Amino acid sequence: MKSNSNLLPRPLQGIIPPLVTPLLDRDKLDTAGLERLIEHILAGGVHGLFILGTTGEAPSLSYRLRYEVIERVCSQVKERVPVLVGITDTSFVESVNIANKAQETGAQAVVLTPPYYFPAGQPELLEYLKHLLNELPLPVFLYNMPSYTKLVFEPETIWAAAELAGVAGIKDSSGNMIYFRRLQILLKDHPDFSLLMGREELLAETVLLGGHGGVCGGANLLPELYVELYNAACSKDLSKIEILHERVMKLSSAIYNVGQYESSYLKGLKCALSCIGICSDFMAEPFHRFRQAEHDRIQQYVKELGIESEK
Amino acid sequence: MKSNSNLLPRPLQGIIPPLVTPLLDRDKLDTAGLERLIEHILAGGVHGLFILGTTGEAPSLSYRLRYEVIERVCSQVKERVPVLVGITDTSFVESVNIANKAQETGAQAVVLTPPYYFPAGQPELLEYLKHLLNELPLPVFLYNMPSYTKLVFEPETIWAAAELAGVAGIKDSSGNMIYFRRLQILLKDHPDFSLLMGREELLAETVLLGGHGGVCGGANLLPELYVELYNAACSKDLSKIEILHERVMKLSSAIYNVGQYESSYLKGLKCALSCIGICSDFMAEPFHRFRQAEHDRIQQYVKELGIESEK
Amino acid sequence: MKSNSNLLPRPLQGIIPPLVTPLLDRDKLDTAGLERLIEHILAGGVHGLFILGTTGEAPSLSYRLRYEVIERVCSQVKERVPVLVGITDTSFVESVNIANKAQETGAQAVVLTPPYYFPAGQPELLEYLKHLLNELPLPVFLYNMPSYTKLVFEPETIWAAAELAGVAGIKDSSGNMIYFRRLQILLKDHPDFSLLMGREELLAETVLLGGHGGVCGGANLLPELYVELYNAACSKDLSKIEILHERVMKLSSAIYNVGQYESSYLKGLKCALSCIGICSDFMAEPFHRFRQAEHDRIQQYVKELGIESEK
Amino acid sequence: MKSNSNLLPRPLQGIIPPLVTPLLDRDKLDTAGLERLIEHILAGGVHGLFILGTTGEAPSLSYRLRYEVIERVCSQVKERVPVLVGITDTSFVESVNIANKAQETGAQAVVLTPPYYFPAGQPELLEYLKHLLNELPLPVFLYNMPSYTKLVFEPETIWAAAELAGVAGIKDSSGNMIYFRRLQILLKDHPDFSLLMGREELLAETVLLGGHGGVCGGANLLPELYVELYNAACSKDLSKIEILHERVMKLSSAIYNVGQYESSYLKGLKCALSCIGICSDFMAEPFHRFRQAEHDRIQQYVKELGIESEK
Repeated sequence: MKSNSNLLPRPLQGIIPPLVTPLLDRDKLDTAGLERLIEHILAGGVHGLFILGTTGEAPSLSYRLRYEVIERVCSQVKERVPVLVGITDTSFVESVNIANKAQETGAQAVVLTPPYYFPAGQPELLEYLKHLLNELPLPVFLYNMPSYTKLVFEPETIWAAAELAGVAGIKDSSGNMIYFRRLQILLKDHPDFSLLMGREELLAETVLLGGHGGVCGGANLLPELYVELYNAACSKDLSKIEILHERVMKLSSAIYNVGQYESSYLKGLKCALSCIGICSDFMAEPFHRFRQAEHDRIQQYVKELGIESEK
Repeated sequence: MKSNSNLLPRPLQGIIPPLVTPLLDRDKLDTAGLERLIEHILAGGVHGLFILGTTGEAPSLSYRLRYEVIERVCSQVKERVPVLVGITDTSFVESVNIANKAQETGAQAVVLTPPYYFPAGQPELLEYLKHLLNELPLPVFLYNMPSYTKLVFEPETIWAAAELAGVAGIKDSSGNMIYFRRLQILLKDHPDFSLLMGREELLAETVLLGGHGGVCGGANLLPELYVELYNAACSKDLSKIEILHERVMKLSSAIYNVGQYESSYLKGLKCALSCIGICSDFMAEPFHRFRQAEHDRIQQYVKELGIESEK
Repeated sequence: MKSNSNLLPRPLQGIIPPLVTPLLDRDKLDTAGLERLIEHILAGGVHGLFILGTTGEAPSLSYRLRYEVIERVCSQVKERVPVLVGITDTSFVESVNIANKAQETGAQAVVLTPPYYFPAGQPELLEYLKHLLNELPLPVFLYNMPSYTKLVFEPETIWAAAELAGVAGIKDSSGNMIYFRRLQILLKDHPDFSLLMGREELLAETVLLGGHGGVCGGANLLPELYVELYNAACSKDLSKIEILHERVMKLSSAIYNVGQYESSYLKGLKCALSCIGICSDFMAEPFHRFRQAEHDRIQQYVKELGIESEK
Repeated sequence: MKSNSNLLPRPLQGIIPPLVTPLLDRDKLDTAGLERLIEHILAGGVHGLFILGTTGEAPSLSYRLRYEVIERVCSQVKERVPVLVGITDTSFVESVNIANKAQETGAQAVVLTPPYYFPAGQPELLEYLKHLLNELPLPVFLYNMPSYTKLVFEPETIWAAAELAGVAGIKDSSGNMIYFRRLQILLKDHPDFSLLMGREELLAETVLLGGHGGVCGGANLLPELYVELYNAACSKDLSKIEILHERVMKLSSAIYNVGQYESSYLKGLKCALSCIGICSDFMAEPFHRFRQAEHDRIQQYVKELGIESEK
């Protein structure tokens, strides 16, 4: 059992981009765009791929499409890097179904937020997690994303989960750096437990002070920028970090801040990918691609940031 | 098209209980319990049934099980009352799939919260709704439930939606009575638009001041109590209202307040139903039935409230 | 001790408007406006006056000015109705100081939210309340206003407080009607404990189902409207209630919704009072009077609502 | 004008502890404890003192006591380091009064959160700030503390404020490191604008990546620990940082986490100071000192952390 997971370093370290899901239409994958995107990202030297996360718009996709994404990505990546598959769902059974699909197609791990409709208490959440671990065929990364799920994985819950077989790490997208530092202290005796940062603006300091890497949405666009920053942070090269961190901040301030709703991040990222010829900017409901004015601003930012088009 | 909906009064009025989903095990319906529960509720004189809502734990159920619930309920109700089916989902495509299933099996309407993972802005929400209405084969009731979905249907969004063909009303579970009163004022020129209260503690005043009825969880247990209160409110019988409203408050204060998490409502209701021999108290993850101490307290409350067991 | 409070009916019932504080300039009272406003309100037949509350912008006023307001109001009202004085403060000592001033000048009671900078737990809050009651020279009304104070007085805390000598009632401005109904059930054995509604949109149903009255901001403008609605609700005259409740809703929807921030209520109310010649619309920082465009809309609404100018 | 502020380096850099306010009783300063505390902190080599902040329980103190604190601190510090005085208040006039007192007694700057009762919009907040700056006799540091004030100083508001004469910097206690990093980028062209971290757990990374220092509550206890960590971060000594940051995290995890409410931080800090003989642990309402069991745990932590008692 869990044979695919031999490919999974423990702890998992480095840059693991959360893959955008390219779409041509409602419930229709942009398969050529997906291929280009995967090769573009892998060429940047990343250390893994995370599919069907928030950046991948997973909760908005049909199950049919999610399964298609898992198959196509695994079959194209061909174990060049570990593939992590989002199995977040409000339904326990559906999470297990996706995890089984992930295992069958050769993925290395799965990723899970708390179930996000009913607000569970922490003991309820831990019990749910124990039951789920009994059913999962692959190691799981917990995913803390309270602004979207309402529920926090409290540090003590993470700490208890780290004792359980099958929990490989956490991706924290709360932006709350004190939370992250508390996890590091609590999990000091679990050197195999991977502590990954979900907000690219905090990648530099995460790795400088002992975190294992980052799940950086911007690495869909500029994978090598985040890989270089990760490497600079590993080697404590502070002057290089300063330059690269500033580029990361500029990309984030520009590309993710064009619209007026929280969807700005997703819309901006997909729009920028279409500007450089990687994939379509079609979005899953409840969102829609930027209209012309916003598209033009993104195009301008792409140029200013020196993000080059694919040939 | 939309032939089933001939059975749907416009506006829909009265008591439309949100059906508990009886389970025997993970992903296994308690079919005998479901039959008993339906007949128990219909015997109370209710005006409709709402399946696969929050009380029905719908987001926690597999799609397979949700489809089974739709089929069994519709086939047993046999058009004695309108059946409303929850199609809330983070995925547009899956919402449409459930709605189509509902139409095929003879349901009369569907019910929808905003998609609840990504926080959409109100204009994004309205655009999503317009697109969805193009695909829905049945009239839709909007469902305002901000504590679980994070997103409010703002009054102005409801008002714009009421102009669209296919929107039949709203169920408001916010508990914010000012919101409800604003909707009444805004929708005064839409006499067919149904304004339903999702919190049973507010049923009396809702109907007294012009609302159309309530979706009352307690009506799984004591359907006739809520029907009588609804009737008393329609006929402005204030002394009868006072007595019945107090019973409603006592049931709510007792049965829904035993546990220490927000799941107390669901656990208490299902536990009480098992105490009177209607159905199993097995719950869908991430929740679990009450343990003995809590069970005993519910048993005691059931007795004090005079809720009789099924023969 | 507590001699003034002989004038305070137990429970306090009826309409107790939260007085606007008319200002001519920063830290300068509009004394003529204050006199006109008091007489205007008292002429409407109200049952009390609440000064230095949220509507009175109390937290924004200097202590010197607050003291001046207490003196002027008490000296002008001359015990025609009970005067309730807001003593809400983050500092225990300052709350006691204001309460002593209120007692000296002849006020009948004080009103208190939880201290609103530090987020206290409920046991901390109850202990604070017990200590404060030892120092207060007048009966106190608790004031639940979670959107501004962050802290809720939980129903169990209110219940425990009702056992303490000196607690005369609660004003609830949460808008959460379930909370209010729970309080009614919990406090059934305390017939002297006054349950007052802080949101005028809910006055009708509050009194219809057993609440004692309302603290209605709109009663600065149209005191007789709220007094009539209160009387209609007391006498269960549902057809009269319907007409008056609709006027209340229209005033609220118009006058309080002109600006784009939460200050719309305060700015709109003060602006409308200036439109009818009662007092200046100067506001305490951090707010400022409406600019011309918003002023004109309020003027138009005042006309449409038939609110007549003072001669 | 603003003569005291010659002593204020621009930008202000280093460790500026937020002074605990030692109390003997309600509204009674522990003057001997205050003297010991000041000398204890100054002996640690800090770069300033911030009095009457959240850690100083300022909103809970009477104005009389706040004025006494300002006088005693300024007269004892005697310009050995700059003194910053919290003037946060819901009343504009009272904020100005405190600022004038601060200027008269020789303080160097003032510190201000948004007024925290009424929820102002950002344009309202900026207008308030402009008006206030006209009245302030000393440079002001903005203080972002959304969990207590409800209101954020949005980055764009800070950016606009930085253009105004008299705004010297910001202390951010949000814990949201992305917010802090955005401020750094936005304010790159304002090298005199001081960016201070209000959460000691984030001091190391703040300074490593270009922030100016920290306002560290723990520096009441162990001033030299935070000064050393600041110096290590300035000189990019990563191995030293690692050791010192871990001590900071251990202190924070132990001392600030004993109680069950948010008051744990304040109670724990004051209790620890009393354990080492610096000052009384009496607290201002609505809080109260730890009872014996919690006191004993703090005593044990103080021992384990090697915090030595004053002779």
